[in-house]
Amino acid sequence: MRTNLAEGLELSGGDYGIVAVVAVVALAALAIGYVLLKEVLAAGQGTAKMQEIAKAVQEGAAAYLKRQRNTLSIFGVVVFLLLFALPADSWGERIGRSVFFLVGAVFSFSIGYLGMWLATQANLRVAAASREKGGRETAMRVAFRTGGVVGMITVGLGLFGAAVVVLAYAGQAPKVLEGFGFGAALIAMFMRVGGGIFTKAADVGADLVGKVEQNIPEDDPRNAATIADNVGDNVGDCAGMAADLFESYAVMLVAALILGSTAFGTDGLLFPLIVPAIGVITAVIGVYITKAKTNENGLVTINRSFYISAVISAVLCAVAAFVFLPGSFADFGPEHAGVSGNPAVIATVSVIIGIVLAAIILRLTGYFTGTEHGPVKNVGKTSETGAATVILSGISVGFESAVYTAIVIAAAVFGAFLIGGTVALFAVALAGTGLLTTVGVIVAMDTFGPVSDNAQGIAEMSGDVDEQAAQILTELDAVGNTTKAITKGIAIATAVLAATALFGSYSDSIAKALGSAGEGIGTLPSTFLNNIVNANTLVGVIIGAAVVFMFSGLAVNAVSRAAGAVVYEVRRQFREIAGIMEGTTRPEYGRVVDIVTRDSLRELATPGLLAVFAPIAVGFGLGTGALAGYLAGAIACGTLMAIFLANSGGAWDNAKKLVEDGNHGGKGSEAHAATVIGDTVGDPFKDTAGPAINPLIKVMNLVSVLIAPAVVQFSIGPDASLGLRIGIAVVAVAIIVVSVVISKRRSTALADTPSENPEPAKAG
Amino acid sequence: MRTNLAEGLELSGGDYGIVAVVAVVALAALAIGYVLLKEVLAAGQGTAKMQEIAKAVQEGAAAYLKRQRNTLSIFGVVVFLLLFALPADSWGERIGRSVFFLVGAVFSFSIGYLGMWLATQANLRVAAASREKGGRETAMRVAFRTGGVVGMITVGLGLFGAAVVVLAYAGQAPKVLEGFGFGAALIAMFMRVGGGIFTKAADVGADLVGKVEQNIPEDDPRNAATIADNVGDNVGDCAGMAADLFESYAVMLVAALILGSTAFGTDGLLFPLIVPAIGVITAVIGVYITKAKTNENGLVTINRSFYISAVISAVLCAVAAFVFLPGSFADFGPEHAGVSGNPAVIATVSVIIGIVLAAIILRLTGYFTGTEHGPVKNVGKTSETGAATVILSGISVGFESAVYTAIVIAAAVFGAFLIGGTVALFAVALAGTGLLTTVGVIVAMDTFGPVSDNAQGIAEMSGDVDEQAAQILTELDAVGNTTKAITKGIAIATAVLAATALFGSYSDSIAKALGSAGEGIGTLPSTFLNNIVNANTLVGVIIGAAVVFMFSGLAVNAVSRAAGAVVYEVRRQFREIAGIMEGTTRPEYGRVVDIVTRDSLRELATPGLLAVFAPIAVGFGLGTGALAGYLAGAIACGTLMAIFLANSGGAWDNAKKLVEDGNHGGKGSEAHAATVIGDTVGDPFKDTAGPAINPLIKVMNLVSVLIAPAVVQFSIGPDASLGLRIGIAVVAVAIIVVSVVISKRRSTALADTPSENPEPAKAG
Repeated sequence: MRTNLAEGLELSGGDYGIVAVVAVVALAALAIGYVLLKEVLAAGQGTAKMQEIAKAVQEGAAAYLKRQRNTLSIFGVVVFLLLFALPADSWGERIGRSVFFLVGAVFSFSIGYLGMWLATQANLRVAAASREKGGRETAMRVAFRTGGVVGMITVGLGLFGAAVVVLAYAGQAPKVLEGFGFGAALIAMFMRVGGGIFTKAADVGADLVGKVEQNIPEDDPRNAATIADNVGDNVGDCAGMAADLFESYAVMLVAALILGSTAFGTDGLLFPLIVPAIGVITAVIGVYITKAKTNENGLVTINRSFYISAVISAVLCAVAAFVFLPGSFADFGPEHAGVSGNPAVIATVSVIIGIVLAAIILRLTGYFTGTEHGPVKNVGKTSETGAATVILSGISVGFESAVYTAIVIAAAVFGAFLIGGTVALFAVALAGTGLLTTVGVIVAMDTFGPVSDNAQGIAEMSGDVDEQAAQILTELDAVGNTTKAITKGIAIATAVLAATALFGSYSDSIAKALGSAGEGIGTLPSTFLNNIVNANTLVGVIIGAAVVFMFSGLAVNAVSRAAGAVVYEVRRQFREIAGIMEGTTRPEYGRVVDIVTRDSLRELATPGLLAVFAPIAVGFGLGTGALAGYLAGAIACGTLMAIFLANSGGAWDNAKKLVEDGNHGGKGSEAHAATVIGDTVGDPFKDTAGPAINPLIKVMNLVSVLIAPAVVQFSIGPDASLGLRIGIAVVAVAIIVVSVVISKRRSTALADTPSENPEPAKAG
Repeated sequence: MRTNLAEGLELSGGDYGIVAVVAVVALAALAIGYVLLKEVLAAGQGTAKMQEIAKAVQEGAAAYLKRQRNTLSIFGVVVFLLLFALPADSWGERIGRSVFFLVGAVFSFSIGYLGMWLATQANLRVAAASREKGGRETAMRVAFRTGGVVGMITVGLGLFGAAVVVLAYAGQAPKVLEGFGFGAALIAMFMRVGGGIFTKAADVGADLVGKVEQNIPEDDPRNAATIADNVGDNVGDCAGMAADLFESYAVMLVAALILGSTAFGTDGLLFPLIVPAIGVITAVIGVYITKAKTNENGLVTINRSFYISAVISAVLCAVAAFVFLPGSFADFGPEHAGVSGNPAVIATVSVIIGIVLAAIILRLTGYFTGTEHGPVKNVGKTSETGAATVILSGISVGFESAVYTAIVIAAAVFGAFLIGGTVALFAVALAGTGLLTTVGVIVAMDTFGPVSDNAQGIAEMSGDVDEQAAQILTELDAVGNTTKAITKGIAIATAVLAATALFGSYSDSIAKALGSAGEGIGTLPSTFLNNIVNANTLVGVIIGAAVVFMFSGLAVNAVSRAAGAVVYEVRRQFREIAGIMEGTTRPEYGRVVDIVTRDSLRELATPGLLAVFAPIAVGFGLGTGALAGYLAGAIACGTLMAIFLANSGGAWDNAKKLVEDGNHGGKGSEAHAATVIGDTVGDPFKDTAGPAINPLIKVMNLVSVLIAPAVVQFSIGPDASLGLRIGIAVVAVAIIVVSVVISKRRSTALADTPSENPEPAKAG
């Protein structure tokens, strides 16, 4: 691989060999995923009643995803055509970029679908296992192995896709990879938003009528929204999360490959593939060593697996760096002769920075959202002075933890930047690939959460589970809550690293475009750079930050609206259908599922359009300097907002658990009611708006990278046309405005629904 | 004034004349303020009982401000010394900068003190007026005239200070003005934070025990926290707000003068003084034409005055531009000969952009926080499904309104930027001075709010007011709520414009420093500019945004903590002092005032230190590129956060009023309880964290501008020392970390207070 090809556009024979090995490792991951799948499916399926409930949930989830697929297909085709219309260096690149956009999109959706399908299978089996002798170990193993399947497929497909692109396109791979990453990120964003709205609308709606008004327990079969709630856990937490983590994996890898090739030509394409291949190996180890021990907290078990596999990753990556990378930049070719520094050392340190970052985020998130530490205890304590102080203290925890996490991420970026010297951005990208080595285990951890949660739901609804089994499931659910918060922190870290790297690639792409479009205007680049510090750029930063606020507001609002519809429907059923409360008549579960399906698909359009068209409007309307500012603002504000939303939500959830465990008055006290309000506020924070910001950041970055050459082409040189630029910007703004206005209309319509007695059903 | 002086360092005789006229206008404003003051003090003072209560409030407020003055003096002296140590071009500049820092600080504090003192005088008189015949008109006039006094003194002192600096220092004025603005902003920030914590800790604490636990009305004399609550309204809403608006005025003016002189030498110092002088005249008109009409909503009256004075300002500014500015840039001197564009037109359009911006913010804020529009109605509607949905919908409203307001502000910046051409930043600053012409009326509007609020408090506590009078006071209070929200929006707009202008002056000061420090290293500036687009800068943007989150979290947390202390004390008094509930024994009001005074002064240290030392740490630690990113991140994120906090708080407050007016079940319903929770959450949002972000942004900008030359000096050239730079950064970080750790300790200590029965007093 140390051969330097004149054009830097082709791979040498040895290089092909290495990429082929990586592809084989990726396929091996898929094979191991299949083995784990067989193991999960072989587990017992419990009683007929449990199976019946699981089937209802599975059908609801499948129906939702099918309708979502149809909606997204239309959107995908439109974007495919737009992408095809964008400037490209060659037809091969143009076609490859668009085709791999579709591949990325299909992979993203498929992994989401599979994650959901698998979770619905696993829920039942975990619930069934809890009834058996030694059930705790079996239940935990099934739940974690389920995560293992999703983890293997996530890393397998991500790595395989990237390796195929590199094999097929070599030096042109970067442009094609942009398409691949964009497809993955776009679909993941939609699945996160849609699934997030679904799951929280159903959950909040179910809780508002069930727990708050009717005082019946969670997952009580008399609540018409219970099946929808369980469907939501699968389409939101499983499908959305799996697609999101796949997208994080793919985009990070894409960013590393793009920057690698920018720095070293095809030589730079290999190491970013080797590191995640190592990650596949360590993920397999991680999944197989996770064995529940009696009397050991499940979180301890999972954390141990994480740390062991992280250490193995670090060691193997260091070895790989010294084997595959030269000791001097000069070995990459004469043009790098003057560069000081040792590539192998830089790569090793960068990758380790990424791995350490994952470990620190794990601990930070655990500290801020875990029940055994100060912050959640404080939130619990404030429940004694009512819901308002619970909300305020949770918001403080969220703000504070966002700051620390953001600063740790920034420190990692800065560290890689310092180490990297002249290849600073590539070092940042390598730190990102270091993070990726942990993704396999992370996905497994994340899936654990919703599977346990749903298993508990099935058990509760079927009534076929004794007290000891219920205890096991409750314990697993609590562990799942924390693992979910951790993976969100790590997902946002990949977003920042990938976005930083892509930000660099954006600048690079502008510089290149200026180079080709600006012949004879040699002063332009420095004029451009001058513009970076001016008011125009600052305007971009403000708009970038504003889009994050807008997106969050839209997502939260969408949940409120959809949850409102659920509340009205459930109340209606309690009122109009006799015998529900007595348990003699079954509520119409399907109607609630339909309502939430319809609403969440309708609601995902506006935030989705905003993500795609806002950078187009800024880029064409205000220019590349403002667009650079826009990206910086979106990355910075998005990081903080995402962590704030995830961690305040996590803290409220666990503060409620703290009270339910008998502190501050326990279940049924005023303090408990206060924490239930906190938890309800936190629901759309942590499961809708927060996690969707991660793909949002990447979608906006990739859109910017993709449109940058066109913006430059229409700004200067022979194709310059202010009219065209303004025209495009106006159309983009109009699309956003119209979709916001339409969603406002809906909001008003709901508010105009004839007011009912606040608690109409209580009388019933 | 069109004479071009060789050095650009001295004013011509005619120029002196103009500045002297401006100074006289400023003094005239102070004289008119005195006349208005006499009028206010001449009003009737009501019953003995009312006077007794007013006296208690006044004593508490004065005691707090005296202790605050002592605390701030120490801080002021330390900063004075640090400032003196910073590099300067000459001893005159160094001394002037430090001395005028103190002048700015003393002005800021004095206006705050005066605002508070006057409000306590006016509260009583407004309450007294409401009892008389035709009381509504008198009450409204007294309240608005009180605001007029503060408004006149704000613009008078701000303009007088700036004029004196220009007269004394001419071409060296910019550096000295930096000191003046910094002093004003720093003290205003502390007064905003300290007063904000005081007012909301007392308010939230009083509500939690009074309204929520004991079910007694607001301002009930049996509540030990009522006097503290009323003291808080004066030290927070009056003292803090007056200092804040003075600081907004001063810093905006300073920014305009700095950029004016950068663009045109001393010629550029005149027009930015003429525009606010016009503002003084229109403010006088605005205050005198505000006359309450029978059957007209007070808000309509006030808005009319605003619009009339805004139109007069616009016309007069346009006339002034064409009279005082030349029709061509060449008239400023030969070095501007090649610049196209008409200075008079640019100035006119820029100033009008600022005035229009104020009007749009007025309408936007009114829309999002007024009870008659969709957003607040929606929040009110969600009260039917409980507190959680109230919180969620309020947060959505806040996010959304923040986006629109931020985009309008960004559009104003961009508009001025486009119009300005080569003097783009000066045009932004002129737009800022356009905004300033409305400040006199704005201050009058803002003061109206707390004065009416407190008048109601005094009336309620004294029991000496009949139903009709109470009705008048309630109406005035509701009007005051909206005017308060509007002024916050306008204050943040001045922050963005001033910060954008200062951001430019930061870049300029870096470029200058590079020019002098970087002799023989001609490539440095472009290297520096290159760095702007790299990962380092992005790290700065992330940290800048993070500081805004941290500051907000600290402020909210401080209120929670201090309110907790109030709750425990009030509960203790109810429990231990017999006869309070029966009204036979007076609670110990003074103890609650003492507790809040102590806590709020203790709590303001951490956010204050963060604001001053974070830019120092970033600048010296990561360099000027990162610091530029830091400022951009802080401005963007700060703008959105400030508006989000102000408007969600305002929406919750008015949603509660909507329910209290009989909607959704009315007072005492579940819906009402839900909106009370929303309002309590909104209290520290809108009155502590939100408004303090405005001075925060400016303090951070001014610190950056002040340290920029030192950062460059230690980075390159003969004085370069990495050790010194890192050393300074480490000390700055250490100061922040230690103060955060100390405030964490307090937090833990409170959480460890032995838990009492959640509602111990209910039994009593």
